[in-house]
Amino acid sequence: LYGYVPIDTPALEYAEILLGKGGGETEKQVYRFTDAGGRDIALRFDLTVPLARFTAANLSRLTLPFKRYHIAKVWRGENTQRGRYREFMQCDCDTIGDDSDLSDFEILCMMRDALGAAGAGAVVIHINHRGLFNRFLDSIGEREKSVAILRTVDKLAKIGRDETLALLAAICGDKNAAEIVNFVTTEGGWDETLEKLTGVSGGGSPETERLHAIRRFMLDAGIADSFKLDPSITRGLDYYTGIVYETFLTEMPEIGSVCSGGRYGDLAGLYTKEKLSGAGASIGLDRLIAALAALGKLPARSTYAAAAIAALDAGQAGLYQKAAGELRGAGIACEVLGADAKKLTAFFINAEKRGLRYALFRTDEAAGADMGQWRFTLRNLAARNNTESLSLHDVIKYIQDERL
Amino acid sequence: LYGYVPIDTPALEYAEILLGKGGGETEKQVYRFTDAGGRDIALRFDLTVPLARFTAANLSRLTLPFKRYHIAKVWRGENTQRGRYREFMQCDCDTIGDDSDLSDFEILCMMRDALGAAGAGAVVIHINHRGLFNRFLDSIGEREKSVAILRTVDKLAKIGRDETLALLAAICGDKNAAEIVNFVTTEGGWDETLEKLTGVSGGGSPETERLHAIRRFMLDAGIADSFKLDPSITRGLDYYTGIVYETFLTEMPEIGSVCSGGRYGDLAGLYTKEKLSGAGASIGLDRLIAALAALGKLPARSTYAAAAIAALDAGQAGLYQKAAGELRGAGIACEVLGADAKKLTAFFINAEKRGLRYALFRTDEAAGADMGQWRFTLRNLAARNNTESLSLHDVIKYIQDERL
Repeated sequence: LYGYVPIDTPALEYAEILLGKGGGETEKQVYRFTDAGGRDIALRFDLTVPLARFTAANLSRLTLPFKRYHIAKVWRGENTQRGRYREFMQCDCDTIGDDSDLSDFEILCMMRDALGAAGAGAVVIHINHRGLFNRFLDSIGEREKSVAILRTVDKLAKIGRDETLALLAAICGDKNAAEIVNFVTTEGGWDETLEKLTGVSGGGSPETERLHAIRRFMLDAGIADSFKLDPSITRGLDYYTGIVYETFLTEMPEIGSVCSGGRYGDLAGLYTKEKLSGAGASIGLDRLIAALAALGKLPARSTYAAAAIAALDAGQAGLYQKAAGELRGAGIACEVLGADAKKLTAFFINAEKRGLRYALFRTDEAAGADMGQWRFTLRNLAARNNTESLSLHDVIKYIQDERL
Repeated sequence: LYGYVPIDTPALEYAEILLGKGGGETEKQVYRFTDAGGRDIALRFDLTVPLARFTAANLSRLTLPFKRYHIAKVWRGENTQRGRYREFMQCDCDTIGDDSDLSDFEILCMMRDALGAAGAGAVVIHINHRGLFNRFLDSIGEREKSVAILRTVDKLAKIGRDETLALLAAICGDKNAAEIVNFVTTEGGWDETLEKLTGVSGGGSPETERLHAIRRFMLDAGIADSFKLDPSITRGLDYYTGIVYETFLTEMPEIGSVCSGGRYGDLAGLYTKEKLSGAGASIGLDRLIAALAALGKLPARSTYAAAAIAALDAGQAGLYQKAAGELRGAGIACEVLGADAKKLTAFFINAEKRGLRYALFRTDEAAGADMGQWRFTLRNLAARNNTESLSLHDVIKYIQDERL
């Protein structure tokens, strides 16, 4: 609905392409091996690196801003826990080649809508600006240690204030550690928090301007309740340069962020000299599903069919399929199931166990191949009642009417 | 529409689970390695083995017949060619726990419909019965060599009659080789071919009965033109026991079968003592796409959006997104694009390059946050004309009317 186009990339890539810069935690988790042809290959561990490669390779053919989504599996050899697996589904969207607040805001709207459509209930998207945090670090003279500081601050929710303070003190001393923790734990409404952060980061700046603009957009769009300015959100990853965000379910915040992302200044530096800025977000689908399951919000469906036609006369399978085809043509899923005219109850029970809503069987005896003459009894398995003597046309109309 | 339910299984499985029986061509092609935890793992090479494992593991929870589809990637380390890759998309459907001709026929109907929906144009599904071929082998005393014979016959279309004869002669002598080639190259209409095959396979049998029944179903359903009885179809794989099929595009038969499958007597013997018979088919999606591309039938879409709203006043991004949300709510995909009021032509060109059909910009100056007062000019990029002074409601109606 937002006009993002789907792409796919190979799950297996040359290891040197995926791991380019190499280094760090990620590389340890990568599934990497030598194939029968002697090639050093790896399974993708996220969808961002493949997007960078794809964008660089196809840059001349893309119309910017390039908006793509990618829903696919990635693999990381880490310890598993609830909603965290070694093989998991990533669900990414990105806008490439546009560094406006407009595109930041579009992604935020889309995250909110997508989680709503997924049945997540109320969510709060926590937003911060990486550049603002850097300005603050400048002001306390700790900018060059930003990577280590960011990674530590990113753990705050998990390890708590005291341990964060201790870790930071080891990096930049007690005083600055306290200042950093004060900064990232600034509380209050958006405007109040932004005012405080502006003060401790050396005054108004393009970064505070962007946070003001995004706040205005939210108010104009009538969706401000879904967002919170939260300076503790830093995102551990180095490549973010602009606003960053994490999303928490109001009913189960403790499961952690179900949708995160941010703006980066240079997506594909590994593969092209072209500096591609962009903004992206990723839904943690497995974690979201684990949360929805725990909240009892995951609908159970044992089938996608709505109706079954009983094949009471096994020799007429061709005609039953033709009748089912009429329903399918009207958008009504329909299967043909073997059944015994003397055991209709067993047929109804089977249909119900399959999760179907309607069970049909033919009642005319004389009419042959002319489907216009056929008459059905339709059992509504939800309402537990039968309607008799319906033509195929009547059956379709009955189901369509009930859908409206 | 046929009521098949989607499942997914891990791409990575323990090698001993996937390779159970081990052996043969398949094992050589499997991507297999030891992970960081010392586990012997492999990437799935088809979706049938994972289906067998899944079905065995969940048997008590499934309502039979279990009808599932699975569209996912599999990996084989083989030589690549047009429409054949090391990483490719498999597209399987199976009915488990039903050995009736009814379920054979349902799969055939679904293959035909699915290929039609994919834009494949006319197809012919070539059908044979593995059991009938075995009866014929019995009658010439070569049943115990059936595996080697089947694999050879399966190559007939590729290697030609003479080479097939030579290979078969090495297995079972000149005379029987000639009889086998005669059998598999029997030509004619369905009834005529079936009569000949009945004669050389020892007379009427449950196998010929099933082929008669399926023929009758096709005629009843009015789709007999899409099917051909073709005794050269044997499918190399050992596990088929009933009817088998391959599908060829009328406009490009030389690319090979784009959808194949058949009936098997024991799906999950490796994982359960329960004997599960079933029937399945698999669309070769990559090959189908290669064919559609070569035939010029693959639609090119640069975007999934229908409309773009020009963000002429960057400060109003919140309102533009709110307006776009109204279109999205009506099922119309819409993006918001940065644009300059003095360069509307550039906006139209950008929208057209993105593959959009409609480009909108606001023309009222006074109206503020009240979207009901907004007025748009809608440019129909396909028709190359503008409609002025439309409310948001008018815009939605205009697009919906054009869709009808």
